[in-house]
Amino acid sequence: MKLSERQEEIIRLVKEGQPITSEALAEKLGVTRAALRADLAILTMIGALDARPKVGYVYSDKPKSSLVNEYINEIKVGEIMSKPSVVGEETTVYDAIVYLFLNDVGTLFVENGGFLTGAVSRKDFLKIAIGGTDIHKVPVGVIMTRMPNIICASKEDSAYVLATKIIEHEIDSIPIVEKTMVDDKEQYKILGKVSKTNITKLFVKLGKK
Amino acid sequence: MKLSERQEEIIRLVKEGQPITSEALAEKLGVTRAALRADLAILTMIGALDARPKVGYVYSDKPKSSLVNEYINEIKVGEIMSKPSVVGEETTVYDAIVYLFLNDVGTLFVENGGFLTGAVSRKDFLKIAIGGTDIHKVPVGVIMTRMPNIICASKEDSAYVLATKIIEHEIDSIPIVEKTMVDDKEQYKILGKVSKTNITKLFVKLGKK
Repeated sequence: MKLSERQEEIIRLVKEGQPITSEALAEKLGVTRAALRADLAILTMIGALDARPKVGYVYSDKPKSSLVNEYINEIKVGEIMSKPSVVGEETTVYDAIVYLFLNDVGTLFVENGGFLTGAVSRKDFLKIAIGGTDIHKVPVGVIMTRMPNIICASKEDSAYVLATKIIEHEIDSIPIVEKTMVDDKEQYKILGKVSKTNITKLFVKLGKK
Repeated sequence: MKLSERQEEIIRLVKEGQPITSEALAEKLGVTRAALRADLAILTMIGALDARPKVGYVYSDKPKSSLVNEYINEIKVGEIMSKPSVVGEETTVYDAIVYLFLNDVGTLFVENGGFLTGAVSRKDFLKIAIGGTDIHKVPVGVIMTRMPNIICASKEDSAYVLATKIIEHEIDSIPIVEKTMVDDKEQYKILGKVSKTNITKLFVKLGKK
């Protein structure tokens, strides 16, 4: 958004003499208060100015951020998730690593009977690979992080909430799941995944002209 | 940003009868054209409406995105970069992996004489670790990706441009460098790094209320 010359001038005047009333601004600019109304409304709306009742306008150092904020909070996980890479619990660690490279992903999800049971990351694999374990014999089921210790999300969650989970729990990738009840037990079908790569792609999309 | 009831009503009327002139809108709302001026200016500015000269207002399906766009493009790499983890070329692969875990990072940068010479990622380490190489003997200098094949960025670059490099080149982390001339040769001092984690943190910051 390009501000007009007069809007830029208003911001400059507010920064200089804040708090400043609309009367004082109108006088400095040599126009009527009515002529300023639209500009002041816009500048307040985009967050460049803050209107304090009975005091006047002050400059806000967070221009546009509330708009950006709302825009970001409206994006849903379902819009940005990608295909998950899934292996069975009996897959050997070696085969799983090969699968990881073939799919060029950072995390594999593990299933049993069609439901999520675990996750293994590049970091987990590296730890095992240098530890002297026979990776051709041990199955991923033994080294994976097991449910319910996996942070999941649903398609309807906001991308923002998912990104906060990634940062707070220091994880690379989150499985997007759908809960179903099987024999009175909660089970999770894997629908997709969202990783830091998906968030970075979303950031690029938001920044593209 | 919360639109006022009248602004929401204007959007509804435009959607219904577009293109629609400000006269027609004023009539439908039972107010003067002057009274609508500020609302129409705001709605056009945030991209909810598009004003077509001599035709009238039409609804735009990309509200707010140009603002988000500009906001994102103003963020500089220097504002979001973090401390890089650096090892010397002679460090053994095993010691480098231990250092990687201690610092909990995904990529190590390699230096020689204070200047960037290479980079090694978790993926590179995993490939070596399962390949039968003696990781206690081989130095990282042998397995690293070597300059000039490393994508770098400077503190002044925009975070957006950096994120596009991460996606286009499929890398996890970019060293932030400063170019200096040493004996007529370009050399790069490592000032910091920006990874997908930094971009995800930035996304969380933008989305925070």
